[in-house]
Amino acid sequence: MKGLLIVISAPSGTGKTTLVNMLMKAFPKMEFSVSCTTRKPRPGEIDGKDYYFISFEEFEKKIENNELLEWAEVYGNFYGTPKDKVIEALNEGKDILLDIDTQGALQVKKNYPDAVLIFILPPSLKELERRLRNRGTEDEETIEKRLLIARRELSLATKYDYIIINDKIEEAFEKLKSIVTAERWRTKRVEEHLPELIKDREMLQLLNS
Amino acid sequence: MKGLLIVISAPSGTGKTTLVNMLMKAFPKMEFSVSCTTRKPRPGEIDGKDYYFISFEEFEKKIENNELLEWAEVYGNFYGTPKDKVIEALNEGKDILLDIDTQGALQVKKNYPDAVLIFILPPSLKELERRLRNRGTEDEETIEKRLLIARRELSLATKYDYIIINDKIEEAFEKLKSIVTAERWRTKRVEEHLPELIKDREMLQLLNS
Repeated sequence: MKGLLIVISAPSGTGKTTLVNMLMKAFPKMEFSVSCTTRKPRPGEIDGKDYYFISFEEFEKKIENNELLEWAEVYGNFYGTPKDKVIEALNEGKDILLDIDTQGALQVKKNYPDAVLIFILPPSLKELERRLRNRGTEDEETIEKRLLIARRELSLATKYDYIIINDKIEEAFEKLKSIVTAERWRTKRVEEHLPELIKDREMLQLLNS
Repeated sequence: MKGLLIVISAPSGTGKTTLVNMLMKAFPKMEFSVSCTTRKPRPGEIDGKDYYFISFEEFEKKIENNELLEWAEVYGNFYGTPKDKVIEALNEGKDILLDIDTQGALQVKKNYPDAVLIFILPPSLKELERRLRNRGTEDEETIEKRLLIARRELSLATKYDYIIINDKIEEAFEKLKSIVTAERWRTKRVEEHLPELIKDREMLQLLNS
């Protein structure tokens, strides 16, 4: 059966990384998509594993040919999700996970409407700020910047297919896991795969009638 | 939060009753809807618990006033799902389960589009026949009748929101449970309840913007 394209977004500090790691453990056939980038490889980074390292001209061509599910510019470098690689993996039955911002997520939905978009909310902005400060790894300016970006991201949350509030991590994980399991059995997805799933020819005929 | 209206259909012999009982155990706030009927109460049956026992004239009026989510005639008696009772229970936060045939299920979807329709398939018609015979409780004619009805029901399965194949009961149950959990966090449902779920006024404003 074809895999699911799962897109998860959340403001920094919401606990997304923990939840995503739990999800990858629960679904062994789930993989992160490998992005392509115009950024130069850092020592130790492997082409095709960490990123597909490509030139600016190649990146430009991919945009023009609509070969990216989404793309963005960050500090002068370009990053994008290659459509062909994702489709290939989905067809092999792998679930592909994209951990991207709202702008990217909505681009993906437009280019691949079967994608499942999940937005994870913090219980409150105060709690988000508390979590960011508790990390103790970021200076005041970075925290303020993250909170500002969070506000912008939140205003697009209702464009997602699902909204989960990460109050207690175990409960949020249970919801996330349920969404991935449930989405696989939505009729529009099952319909595509009936001949694989149903070996009884008469029953298959009835279902397709 | 408002409850879910879950509609489950399956050909007789698919294991629906077992799955439904497992589901009720897993979700303590889930209840069966109480139907109204023109049939006379049998000894021990309680009005408002087993059924709402009403006259044919009352039933007719309910149909005319569009007060039933679905209705059907069985052996000269009428049975229907009262819309007001279901809506009341959903508003109290209860999940309501309807275990009805395809015709009824599609009526419900039309009258209450937020309903979640789940169709449970047997792995094959042969396996369905085997299970029906193994029960040992029905005569040949009843078995043949059930198989005929199964064929008609199957041809409407793809109109449901979800399709589950009951091959291994534990796996089918896991899927069923996931659907109920996941559906609660679909954005269209969460949106209705944001003021209950989010106590942070600024965050609420951002989500609604």
